[in-house]
Amino acid sequence: MTAMSRFALKIEYDGGPFHGWQRQPDLTSVQGSIEQALAKIDPTSPLLAAAGRTDTGVHANGQVAHVDLARDWDAHSLMGALNYHLKPNPIAIVEAAEVSEDFHARFSATERHYVFRLISRRAPTVHDIGKAWQVRHELNVELMRKGASYLIGQHDFTTFRAIGCQAKSPIKNLDMLDITEHTYPGGVEYRFHVRARSFLHNQVRSFVGTLERVGAGSWTPEKVNDALALRNRAACGTVSPPHGLYLDHVVYPEDPFF
Amino acid sequence: MTAMSRFALKIEYDGGPFHGWQRQPDLTSVQGSIEQALAKIDPTSPLLAAAGRTDTGVHANGQVAHVDLARDWDAHSLMGALNYHLKPNPIAIVEAAEVSEDFHARFSATERHYVFRLISRRAPTVHDIGKAWQVRHELNVELMRKGASYLIGQHDFTTFRAIGCQAKSPIKNLDMLDITEHTYPGGVEYRFHVRARSFLHNQVRSFVGTLERVGAGSWTPEKVNDALALRNRAACGTVSPPHGLYLDHVVYPEDPFF
Repeated sequence: MTAMSRFALKIEYDGGPFHGWQRQPDLTSVQGSIEQALAKIDPTSPLLAAAGRTDTGVHANGQVAHVDLARDWDAHSLMGALNYHLKPNPIAIVEAAEVSEDFHARFSATERHYVFRLISRRAPTVHDIGKAWQVRHELNVELMRKGASYLIGQHDFTTFRAIGCQAKSPIKNLDMLDITEHTYPGGVEYRFHVRARSFLHNQVRSFVGTLERVGAGSWTPEKVNDALALRNRAACGTVSPPHGLYLDHVVYPEDPFF
Repeated sequence: MTAMSRFALKIEYDGGPFHGWQRQPDLTSVQGSIEQALAKIDPTSPLLAAAGRTDTGVHANGQVAHVDLARDWDAHSLMGALNYHLKPNPIAIVEAAEVSEDFHARFSATERHYVFRLISRRAPTVHDIGKAWQVRHELNVELMRKGASYLIGQHDFTTFRAIGCQAKSPIKNLDMLDITEHTYPGGVEYRFHVRARSFLHNQVRSFVGTLERVGAGSWTPEKVNDALALRNRAACGTVSPPHGLYLDHVVYPEDPFF
């Protein structure tokens, strides 16, 4: 067996032009685009394993994937070569590091952090088209925070997962769902900071879509608790659009990029 | 004579798809696009006068223009109608207010504030493509600030204005050129905050292009002073690309939108 070198990659992308992370025949995906770049620098056409399979339109600031390469690269040269071959895709390798063969981008991850950008203002957004979800009405952040508080902790999140979700169990532990306010010209930007060991399919977008209904006043905060208790997908408020969502950060027992 | 109502508009736009602010035959401009929207709501096809004529690719957070309309609009309805007709252009009317007939967006303005976004990082930017100027090398902010200090105050800015600049005099008073540092994943973002009563053509981009050379170490800060003293366009360091520049804010003796 040839000696392979395993590398972890930290990846930033604009999900707009891609059919999600996952490689698919005949559709442009983030994984497929990076694997095409890898094939140009490595004769074994190596494949990636990633921490999170983001949906169509979802962005990343810090997706992590690993790959086994036939030769031992200097990490900076590897980054440079991949970024060169990735052009003009809106995908960048922002960190690369050699890791031991027991590092697995998906299975070694202990925390995943997502950020969701929600902008409330009357006039259409211009600089953040495709980068944030915009609503035209005002939102009450205290009500949204109250609604979010019911979701923290270990729960059966059947209400907040997609019908097609393939996770074995709907029981997850939500460590954080904080909402911060940011000045935005003519309005307010809300950022939802969501953290868990792992997530169900569409879980963050189901949270944000539902909490937006609370902020708009059409749901009481307590209705979030009721919907959770029902364990019924039909009880979910609404699912937010994907383009406000960013896979922000993945945590490992030892930071591979430190 | 018909009674006209004068309105001030605060305008945000992504300059990327436009050939600058100014209306031009056969080219898509920001002014032309807004005037097309105005023609749909007012039979007199009213024309705009703006505080600053931004170049191709330059953005705005707070351009101000005024227009005389045949009828007396409610400001919010006017905003809504214009934003409706502006779709899908990346232009938004973020404020509208009725003003007195002696208000002139260009001639009444007492300060113009520009912001320039310069990102230093190795990996290509993904989320800020077309929104900031990126360089791949490190920059020394203290050297850039030292270079900037020579530009503050009243000077003959011939070195820092475009050859075709139509201003009568190259003498301007630069009130502020502050550089702030901001965290940016895998790099640093520098924001140049520039304020004056008025500017020469390409003045801000000439400043930033030259100061970037200082930050990169290829110019000493003192060379900025020498270049200024030469009053010769050929002495300018370089002119930055337009897509990092934002017309941020225009100040009037009385804020029309307050």
